[in-house]
Amino acid sequence: MSRTLTIVKIGGNVIDNDEALAQFVADFAALESPKILIHGGGKAATRLSSALGIETRMVKGRRVTDAETLQVVTAVYGGMINKHVVSLLQACGCNAIGLCGADGHSVMSTRRPPVEIDGQCVDFGFVGDIDPQGVNVALIDSLLQSGLTPVFCAITDDGHGHLLNSNADSVASAIACAMASTARVDLRMCFEMDGVMADIDNPDSLVPTLDMPTFIAMRDSGVVSRGMLPKIANAFAALESGVATVRIMNAAHLLKPSPGTLII
Amino acid sequence: MSRTLTIVKIGGNVIDNDEALAQFVADFAALESPKILIHGGGKAATRLSSALGIETRMVKGRRVTDAETLQVVTAVYGGMINKHVVSLLQACGCNAIGLCGADGHSVMSTRRPPVEIDGQCVDFGFVGDIDPQGVNVALIDSLLQSGLTPVFCAITDDGHGHLLNSNADSVASAIACAMASTARVDLRMCFEMDGVMADIDNPDSLVPTLDMPTFIAMRDSGVVSRGMLPKIANAFAALESGVATVRIMNAAHLLKPSPGTLII
Repeated sequence: MSRTLTIVKIGGNVIDNDEALAQFVADFAALESPKILIHGGGKAATRLSSALGIETRMVKGRRVTDAETLQVVTAVYGGMINKHVVSLLQACGCNAIGLCGADGHSVMSTRRPPVEIDGQCVDFGFVGDIDPQGVNVALIDSLLQSGLTPVFCAITDDGHGHLLNSNADSVASAIACAMASTARVDLRMCFEMDGVMADIDNPDSLVPTLDMPTFIAMRDSGVVSRGMLPKIANAFAALESGVATVRIMNAAHLLKPSPGTLII
Repeated sequence: MSRTLTIVKIGGNVIDNDEALAQFVADFAALESPKILIHGGGKAATRLSSALGIETRMVKGRRVTDAETLQVVTAVYGGMINKHVVSLLQACGCNAIGLCGADGHSVMSTRRPPVEIDGQCVDFGFVGDIDPQGVNVALIDSLLQSGLTPVFCAITDDGHGHLLNSNADSVASAIACAMASTARVDLRMCFEMDGVMADIDNPDSLVPTLDMPTFIAMRDSGVVSRGMLPKIANAFAALESGVATVRIMNAAHLLKPSPGTLII
């Protein structure tokens, strides 16, 4: 357990910016091994869906993954983005291996059943919630022991021949929690901001450490924006499940000492 | 070297037919391990290119892979098809792991330089010819030893951050030749015909065994069609490089005894 495993999640904003992605990849490659990368989507899937005339259906502000959309996200996240990132990492000397949850049954999920929202029955389609024991720790550990760096997209598998679209923050959090049984896990959830901000309009208002009472106060006063709530909730969940440190931080600060907001 | 490794290549015609693919996946899963699958493309990449308004440029009857086309084939072959096949195999109890050549630097290639054809300089774009020592035998062997079944698409990597589009028959042949140093390799190149046919219009004219003099005679008399020539050349090359048996056969005959044409 003395071994440290760094798990980094990056969002679509880094993926969409060639320069930011190149810098991130070089920084990530420079991190001491062992490590794991989980990446989100970016705008390519939306562009492709639109070009194919696939209507983006939103229900209560959340995207519905129909059969055609699942094919698009599998192509873009699992192929185009994942293999591009792997190739860039290889060029930086990081022996990456790209995976979705179906590969080696590394991340298993269950299709989300229709839910009632505001009295309306909503089926989000081919969306997968990660199974409680769904992360294949033995496989991931064996890849790491072989000197490989797993790079995950957020496509998961139900074990019955169906791929499912999962949330990349949730995949990162689930992998971090599961791997905490084998190593001291540092989870870094990277995005375009410097971390959790006390004032979204003031770049100097970074909150260096965040505990649950402070989070609840910030949430209740509306300081933390709606989109940040699940990210912070995933961060606290990871910490409670045995992940050693969890940071919400800027993808450009990967090599800085003590970057972003440390969840405590 | 007493261990047998079965390497199967399937083409786009199986990929494009849901029923044929389901039957093939069940048959492949039923083969005794260890085994490796290499799959081709199918029509989805052409459909997607067309929907995106990417012009398909052919030079002397061969497709040019420009930067946009490379993104499309990486998405379709490396993501949509590869992960779908892996998920179907997992549902049949075969612990598959989908890979492109960038993953673990499993299959390395070099971009094909512009060539002169009929006095014209032709650049095929992002097309990769597999390097002589380009197959990572140690990695593939380690995955097989872990009980995993590698599933390769024909996207390869140049080691400098560039993915390249390779020929799936060539990837299959290169992997078979390289793995022949570790096991007795049976290579099965599957397509929609029963094997090499003496008369393309007579389904009963299967040539059960094919040696080089017979092939040369068939080629010179025009019995073997133009599209079959590189496939058969790859098959002879594999046999000469130490692959134990090479068959050109129907994808639907995977579980039949002595199927297709045996190259001798």
